[in-house]
Amino acid sequence: MVSKGKMIEFLQSEFPKAPFAIEDFTDNSVVVRHQVTEQDLRPGGTVSGPTMMALADTALYVALLRQIGLVSLAVTTNLNFNFLRKPVADSDLLAECKLLKLGKSLAVGEVCICSVGDEVPVAHATGTYSIPPKR
Amino acid sequence: MVSKGKMIEFLQSEFPKAPFAIEDFTDNSVVVRHQVTEQDLRPGGTVSGPTMMALADTALYVALLRQIGLVSLAVTTNLNFNFLRKPVADSDLLAECKLLKLGKSLAVGEVCICSVGDEVPVAHATGTYSIPPKR
Amino acid sequence: MVSKGKMIEFLQSEFPKAPFAIEDFTDNSVVVRHQVTEQDLRPGGTVSGPTMMALADTALYVALLRQIGLVSLAVTTNLNFNFLRKPVADSDLLAECKLLKLGKSLAVGEVCICSVGDEVPVAHATGTYSIPPKR
Amino acid sequence: MVSKGKMIEFLQSEFPKAPFAIEDFTDNSVVVRHQVTEQDLRPGGTVSGPTMMALADTALYVALLRQIGLVSLAVTTNLNFNFLRKPVADSDLLAECKLLKLGKSLAVGEVCICSVGDEVPVAHATGTYSIPPKR
Repeated sequence: MVSKGKMIEFLQSEFPKAPFAIEDFTDNSVVVRHQVTEQDLRPGGTVSGPTMMALADTALYVALLRQIGLVSLAVTTNLNFNFLRKPVADSDLLAECKLLKLGKSLAVGEVCICSVGDEVPVAHATGTYSIPPKR
Repeated sequence: MVSKGKMIEFLQSEFPKAPFAIEDFTDNSVVVRHQVTEQDLRPGGTVSGPTMMALADTALYVALLRQIGLVSLAVTTNLNFNFLRKPVADSDLLAECKLLKLGKSLAVGEVCICSVGDEVPVAHATGTYSIPPKR
Repeated sequence: MVSKGKMIEFLQSEFPKAPFAIEDFTDNSVVVRHQVTEQDLRPGGTVSGPTMMALADTALYVALLRQIGLVSLAVTTNLNFNFLRKPVADSDLLAECKLLKLGKSLAVGEVCICSVGDEVPVAHATGTYSIPPKR
Repeated sequence: MVSKGKMIEFLQSEFPKAPFAIEDFTDNSVVVRHQVTEQDLRPGGTVSGPTMMALADTALYVALLRQIGLVSLAVTTNLNFNFLRKPVADSDLLAECKLLKLGKSLAVGEVCICSVGDEVPVAHATGTYSIPPKR
């Protein structure tokens, strides 16, 4: 398994401008933080859907690479989102991802997104990554 | 909240032939058992996808009605399934459903399905029910 | 491509009790009919969700096997359903499936379900099949 | 129904910085263009998943508002994406959305995304919007 420190290095090197931070690695989940800025907001004072979708996809990617190593070839094949409540505008978002399956060619995970300081989920996602064969 | 006993009575009265049993009610989840019989099986010794889909839908329905009362008008609007592993043929299936949102007009839940005696999930679902307005 | 006649033979031989009939093969789609019987019905005079889910999965399977040949090892990995309207109880259901992608290891298709004699869809599904490597 | 001209005005006024253009309105679909820029690209020369997800959500929103009028309160409740092929980096993306259902409180649509100049879809989405009650 990839350590938290190695994952932080990898993400900074591959996606230096991405607004994501590794928040926590537990036995069976990873938590990724999205630092909400003005460009993520929507009229009415909430965080945009695409911001949450990008965060969920990133959390799945981190959870998968933690297990299979820092190869950057895995690709998302399916993502399903349920938007549950409008997140507040003035808090970062936390996405916790648990892998449900890690097969040879497919991995499936679920992601729960909350605003920092509030345990009620604002969005939930499940997703599938295709893992390229080893060469 | 509807008690476990009342829910069992309700399901037996409304769906007397359905192969489902209420297994457990916890604070934030319900567990429904599907009694696997020969007609649920597929060649190769596994339980069919439609059997698991019907079970997931039922678990969502039970979790919702437990909260809103025994009105039978709620209808499924969306179901998303990930089939993770082939369930064994000779065990019943257990579906645990947690509600992610209970709004006035929509409820969203997630369902994890396992074979009895094995904690590794064989399928995962999320679903949405539309709740009719009170009259 | 597998002919309509060969597909009918294959399904009758593999799933002799299944309530499905091949209705039509067009250039880029297949149409599968579900013969609605009493056991598919729900209180209130409509067809059950699991009946429609099984039909959608079957239509995807037929569309895929038509392209890759009559190998029976492909397995569903994801299915997403939107239930749009209640189907009437006294008509069969038709599911039209178009493949959106046919890759080496994954195939994705969409399915539109209507009641016979009515073009307004009652349900829509998308699904993914995993195709086993050739040996 | 809202005219193409009125929709263009509305989007420019509500989302002046959004990279979307109304491409076409047909009888039963709308086509929205995403103008791909450097910030949409991923290593390897392809367009990012979140770019396509934002486009699909926008196409659904346009298709819905065209029918119900330019009220900006409808919210996405569910989105399901299948990523089919990597889009090329040097073409804009076109998303065609057809509504599958337009009910009083829920609308469901499907979206097919292609690169300009290529009819093979790169992504497919279905989504649900919740429509607020009229006051």
